[in-house]
Parts: sequence; C-alpha cells; structure tokens
Amino acid sequence: GAERLNGFDKPTVWSIFSPLSVEYKSVNLGQGFPNWNPPDFFMDSLLKLSKEGPHQYTRAFGSPKLVKAIADFYSPIFNRQLDANTNVCVSAGGVSCLNSIFLGLVNPGEEVILLDPSYDCYRAQIQMAGGISKSVPLRPRKLNSQTDIRQRGPVYTVNASDAWDVDFELLEKTINDNTKILLINTPHNPTGKVFNRQELERIHEIVKKYPKCIVVEDGVYEHLCFDNYEPLKLPRFAQLEGAWDRTVSVYSAGKLYSATGIRMGWAVGPQSIIKYVQSFHQYSVFCQHGPMQDATAEALELSSKSSYFAETAQKLKNHRDLLINQLVNSKIPFKIWVPEGGFFVICDISQVEVDPKYFVDEKTGEKYTKDYAFSIWLCKEKGVTAIPCSVFYPPEYQYLGQNLVRFAFCKTEDTILEAGKRLNN
Amino acid sequence: GAERLNGFDKPTVWSIFSPLSVEYKSVNLGQGFPNWNPPDFFMDSLLKLSKEGPHQYTRAFGSPKLVKAIADFYSPIFNRQLDANTNVCVSAGGVSCLNSIFLGLVNPGEEVILLDPSYDCYRAQIQMAGGISKSVPLRPRKLNSQTDIRQRGPVYTVNASDAWDVDFELLEKTINDNTKILLINTPHNPTGKVFNRQELERIHEIVKKYPKCIVVEDGVYEHLCFDNYEPLKLPRFAQLEGAWDRTVSVYSAGKLYSATGIRMGWAVGPQSIIKYVQSFHQYSVFCQHGPMQDATAEALELSSKSSYFAETAQKLKNHRDLLINQLVNSKIPFKIWVPEGGFFVICDISQVEVDPKYFVDEKTGEKYTKDYAFSIWLCKEKGVTAIPCSVFYPPEYQYLGQNLVRFAFCKTEDTILEAGKRLNN
Ligand SMILES: CSCCC(=O)C(=O)O
Ligand SMILES: CSCCC(=O)C(=O)O
Repeated sequence: GAERLNGFDKPTVWSIFSPLSVEYKSVNLGQGFPNWNPPDFFMDSLLKLSKEGPHQYTRAFGSPKLVKAIADFYSPIFNRQLDANTNVCVSAGGVSCLNSIFLGLVNPGEEVILLDPSYDCYRAQIQMAGGISKSVPLRPRKLNSQTDIRQRGPVYTVNASDAWDVDFELLEKTINDNTKILLINTPHNPTGKVFNRQELERIHEIVKKYPKCIVVEDGVYEHLCFDNYEPLKLPRFAQLEGAWDRTVSVYSAGKLYSATGIRMGWAVGPQSIIKYVQSFHQYSVFCQHGPMQDATAEALELSSKSSYFAETAQKLKNHRDLLINQLVNSKIPFKIWVPEGGFFVICDISQVEVDPKYFVDEKTGEKYTKDYAFSIWLCKEKGVTAIPCSVFYPPEYQYLGQNLVRFAFCKTEDTILEAGKRLNN
Repeated sequence: GAERLNGFDKPTVWSIFSPLSVEYKSVNLGQGFPNWNPPDFFMDSLLKLSKEGPHQYTRAFGSPKLVKAIADFYSPIFNRQLDANTNVCVSAGGVSCLNSIFLGLVNPGEEVILLDPSYDCYRAQIQMAGGISKSVPLRPRKLNSQTDIRQRGPVYTVNASDAWDVDFELLEKTINDNTKILLINTPHNPTGKVFNRQELERIHEIVKKYPKCIVVEDGVYEHLCFDNYEPLKLPRFAQLEGAWDRTVSVYSAGKLYSATGIRMGWAVGPQSIIKYVQSFHQYSVFCQHGPMQDATAEALELSSKSSYFAETAQKLKNHRDLLINQLVNSKIPFKIWVPEGGFFVICDISQVEVDPKYFVDEKTGEKYTKDYAFSIWLCKEKGVTAIPCSVFYPPEYQYLGQNLVRFAFCKTEDTILEAGKRLNN
C-alpha cells in the first residue's frame, strides 16, 4: 500500500459503528444520515428524470441544468453573479468535493489548519495530498454541572456557538507562509457551533496576512440553523469583504434534501480556485448521474421558492430539543452543549464511569480511550449508538475528545424517544 | 494549484470534443457512451428501488446486496470463491476505482507501465499519485492499402488483436524493481485488441520476476468480445496460475448495462490489494447510491442467467461491422484495424491530407498534431466527431498517434448511417 495511507488503512469510525449498531440492534444515533425519506418534490423529479434518461456521461463538472441552478441559488447568497461553468464543480458528494480541493490544491509539505474537533475525512484527505494538518482546537467553556442542568429543566445549558471558542492566539501562532488552507466548517460537525460574523472577520484579519492561504468553508449544514440565523442565512466566509477570491465553499444535495446516499455535492468559488478542483475531479470521478443532477437542479429551484428550508430547520430544531430532553433526563450524567446548527449534539461524559473491561478490544487487546469504551458499552449494553469524539482530533489532542461523545438528532421522533427509553433502562 | 496537476490542468479531450460536437451539430462518434437506454430489466429495478429507498449512506465498499452479487458473478470467472467484503470495492465508476487503485498503491517515484495507446485518465491518475508512467507502446503491423481494403469488400482488413503486438522486448527493458504496476486493458481502448492467453502468459513470465509489481487489469469491456471469445469469456490475467495474488481487476456497471452515467464500478482482487483500494476509497468517495447499487445487483443476477450479454455483444458486433462498412466506403482514405472487442475502431489517416489552417488553434495559436487537426476539421466541416489518438500517448510517443483517430460504434444504426452519409459528402 502507498505510504499516504499510513494510519488511515483501517476501517473508519463509520465502518465500525454502523455495522456494530446493526449487530446489536442498537438505536443508531451515530452516523449523520436522516432515517426518513427525501421530500416528495425531490423524489418526484428523480423518478421522472430517471425514467426519461439519458443515463450517460454528462458534462464533467456538472450538467448544464444543475450548474445553472447552483449559480442561481448561490448568486444572491454571495451577492455576485456566479458563472455556472467556471465558479462551480459538482462531484460525488461533499466528501469528493473536499478530496478534489485538497488533492487539487495542496502540495506535499504544505500545511492545512483544522479547527478541531472535526470530521475525520479532512485529516485523511490532507495526508493523501501529502499535506500536513495542524490543529487549532476550539476551546469549550466550562459547563454547568449535571445538577444545574436538571434544575433548569429539560432544555438547556450553554449554547455551543458561544461555548466553543476559536483560539485566535493559537491560530496566529500556527498559521505561516507555508499554510495552504484554513478549513472552517459552519455549522460545525460535531459541536453544532455556528460561527458568527465577528469570528469570521477576526479569522479573515489573520488569514489576510498570508497571501497563499486559501479558506475552505465546509457548509454542508448551511440550511440547518436553529437559533440565531434563518436557514441558509448564516454568515459565510466568502461574504466578507475581499474574501471571495481566496475562498472555496462546499455544499451537498444529500444534506439539503435528506438524501445522503445520492452522492451529490458541489464546490463554489472563484475560477482561480475552482479550475484546480475541476482538474482533479475530471480524472478521479469524471461526472455524476444525469437524472440525479437534473433532479437536484429542480429541487434547488423549487425549494428556494417554497417554505421547505424553513420547515426543515424547524423540524430538525424540534428533534434537537427532543434529543436533548432525553439526554438531560437520562440516568447517565451527561453534560451538554446545545448545538445551534447541524445534525449533532455532543455530550461530556467526564462524570460517567465506564466498566474497565470496555477499555480493551476483546480480539486485538488494543486499548481504547474512554469515549470509545463508553460508545462500545452504550451500543452493546444500552442499545444506543453514539460516536466517540476522539476520532475528531489528531493524536496529540486525542485527550480533548476522550470525554466527548456525539449523538445525531437527524432521526425520527420515535427513534429518539426509543433511545431515551433505553438510556433510562 | 498543486504540482501533481501539472500538464493535466486543462480540459480533457472529452470536455473539448463533446461540447464541440454539440456546437457544430455533429454526429458524435467521439466519447464512448451508448446513445440508447439501459435495458428494461435494469431500469425497472432502478425505478422500483429508487421509489422504495432508502436514499442514505450505505456500507462504504458496496451495499451488502451488490458486493454479494459481484462475488457471485466473478467467482466462476476467477474459479475461486470470492469474499463479498474483502475481495470487492465498489466506487464511482471505473474511473474512481482506478483512482483509488493508483492513489492507494503507488508511492511517489514508483513506476507504472502502460501499453499505449491508452485511456488518458491512467496517466493523469498515475501522476496524481506521484508515480512515473512508462510507456511500452503496442506495435501496429503494417496495414493493407486502402485499395486492398476496398477490393476485399466492405468488411475487413487486419484484425486488431493480431495486429497490435505487445513489445515484449521493450517491456523487459522497461520493467524493474521500482515498477509498482503494469496496467493491461482488455478489450483494449482505443485499439479494440483482446489479449489472448499466450500474450498474458508471456507478460506474466516477465512480471513474475518483480515481486513488488502488481497487475491492474482494466476489463470494463469484458462483455464486448466479437470474434474469438464469447462475451465475458475472454482470457483474464488473474486467471493465470499464480497471478491472482498480484492482480486487481476493474469492471463497470455503466459499461455492462449501457448506462455510463450511473457511475458504478468495482475493483475485484485479493484482500491484500483491495484493502488499500478500500482505504483510499473510503476517504475520497465514501459510498455510492443505495438503490442504484441494489439495482446493479439485481441486473448482475438477472443478466447472468439470461441471453442479455450474448445479445449485447451481437448487437455491438453488428454496429462495429456497420461502422467499418461506412468508413471503408467513405471518400476519406482511411485504413482500418478491425476491433475484436469494446466500443471503438481506430483508423490510420496517413493518406489523408488536412488543410493547414486546422493545424493551428484559432484563438491561442497553439500548434496541433495531424490527428487533432483532422478531428477538428471532421467535426466542423463534415459534421462527424472522432477522437484524435495522440491524447492516448505520452509526449515522447505522441507521434505514434498523429495518424490515428478513433470512432465509437456504441451508437444507434441511424447515427452510424448518418455519419457514413456525412463522410461521403
Ligand atoms: C460519510 S460518513 C460521515 C457522515 C457524517 O457526516 C457524520 O456522521 O459526521
Ligand atoms: C469518462 S470519459 C471517457 C469515456 C471513455 O471511456 C472513452 O470514450 O474512451
């Protein structure tokens, strides 16, 4: 195997906990996919267009209809007229867009800054590109005690957006002339933080001093803002004055339309960046399915004129509140940051004791961190699947994740209530 | 942009000639996609399963149903029981499988041998992996003159499989301890050669001496054998004694079911190789669409029990003969190798004169090779699109392609007849 895989030649956390969840008939609040169907308008388009065809190669960077729809959708957001051919690259989901960004832009030895905890695939892709990932962990404010939370009733405690702070000092120390990319994920997976404009502006002030540094904004949860912003109306880095030319943003139809399996994402940015994303994409993926692309185009057109995004954000907000209620009222002494956006809530488990036998892999004898041991215990003994958060940190900061686990609330109310019941058993 | 893109940061030949074809309302015999629909049994499954859902992430390396169907389909072919989980990796089309193979296996500085002419994406992907591609061109035998061909009636002249010889001497000189991969594409794009067992065995004798060298067999046209082999019954490298452990083979549902747009391919091989393909795949693509995967599974099951592959090969053989007939009887003095497999026929244009004005790009002033100039002329002036073959060679061998152009016969009879008419105008 190639050296670029070193350390990443094992199954991902998704390939471990999803099957484990099936094996133990556990309620799966692990991987971030809705367990409901895409909206009817999307399914209707998809079925109609799939029936019509054609089912052959399309334009490599997105079907004409889809790239036009994307340009139309994001032009008002970025307050500029986007060009469908040169400002957009469609690829096989957000994952593939990010892959084409890293492989298309990063040279061996160049650095990429992540605001951890963060989605495990970033660090893998950076290494595949020969890049060096540098971590600037978000800093959680101290939470109220479990008792405090209970006294305040089912919902809430500290809001994640205020409580996970960007460590600007460390960022300034970390960024340098060899920094190729700073990645911002907002709404943030796994914390649920939505970056406010001031934070983005302070980051911009810092990045500005490094002409070669590009900002990648992973905005796949753009429509899932629950508190301070309307869906899609969150602050975006590329909106800042002078930031457009150095920013590429990633979005996903799978996330927008509750269809994580359709593998349809896009990168949006200036031609000076997108052309490299396109170059890597054309040789690694080539194109996406035509009917699915055109169905996505129709969905973008329809949904931006309807109440779909408002309803979807409200629905997910209700699910968030329901899950938090279940967690706060469970017998397990979780401490919770309330997510302002996205699919996930993370809990502190520092007050939870885990049976020592779960700290060791039965088969391999490998030692687990506490979050991992807790997640295995929770799945096997309680029948609820969560994701241990140490996987969202690099080795040197893994300790920051060892008392954190992530639950997904993009699951039906029945699923969340069943999880709550099991947590109390 | 990253240095790995150097020389590949321009549109591919596919992104040039497909739009040009649309612009000039030209009959498109360029890119290799059928201009008919997938078979009903495939469409029925796809529509039924898409309606049912779910439309969420599947297992990363292929849905359980699809990897089982693939294992069942190829176990008799490779005369061994394949394991669905460890011998198979499903990805976003043959292109993505190849990409995960190169990026998962090749270290910077390692060499990969190509038997050119060959599909342009190989060389790009090798470079993306930091590998060095080495060319061992197939050697065309001298063709009969155009007059000879005409005298022999519409069909045929030299068979491509006999006429494009592997240069074993050059192969022995080129392979070395730093060779990581030898790539064999059979049936071969663009020549239409199908490698016979003796040729594969001689290659195996050579490769055997280099323990680190893996063979990648791109077999996406496996079912399109017209003369010496039944569909799917062509010799495969992994069938040779002792070859399995060093071979990974790539196949494509898009090619099998006339649905190049569905982006569904798979790599099959020993776990020792597949695990690296899976490792790169899980971070670059993650998974494919569930209903499409399961529809592919149903298609594999159904079609292997029906006459589908025999009928498809017969159909493509008829289209091949029809296209050759049109080319041989056209006013353009083509010389032709008759393809034994695949989608394409290549023609020698050494006796064709091309107006000098087509040798220069109107906008950029860039100089074109003759095959390129001819293809532009053919598209603009005759209204027929072909692909210039110099793109299938590396710079040092580009001269070998300058008198070759490729026509696709995976097009309806009407399309082929219309092209014939235009060639005679
Ligand atoms: C592609 S698997 C990861 C899904 C996801 O985004 C998450 O659960 O964090
Ligand atoms: C992915 S575009 C290339 C299509 C093809 O295989 C060919 O025409 O050679």
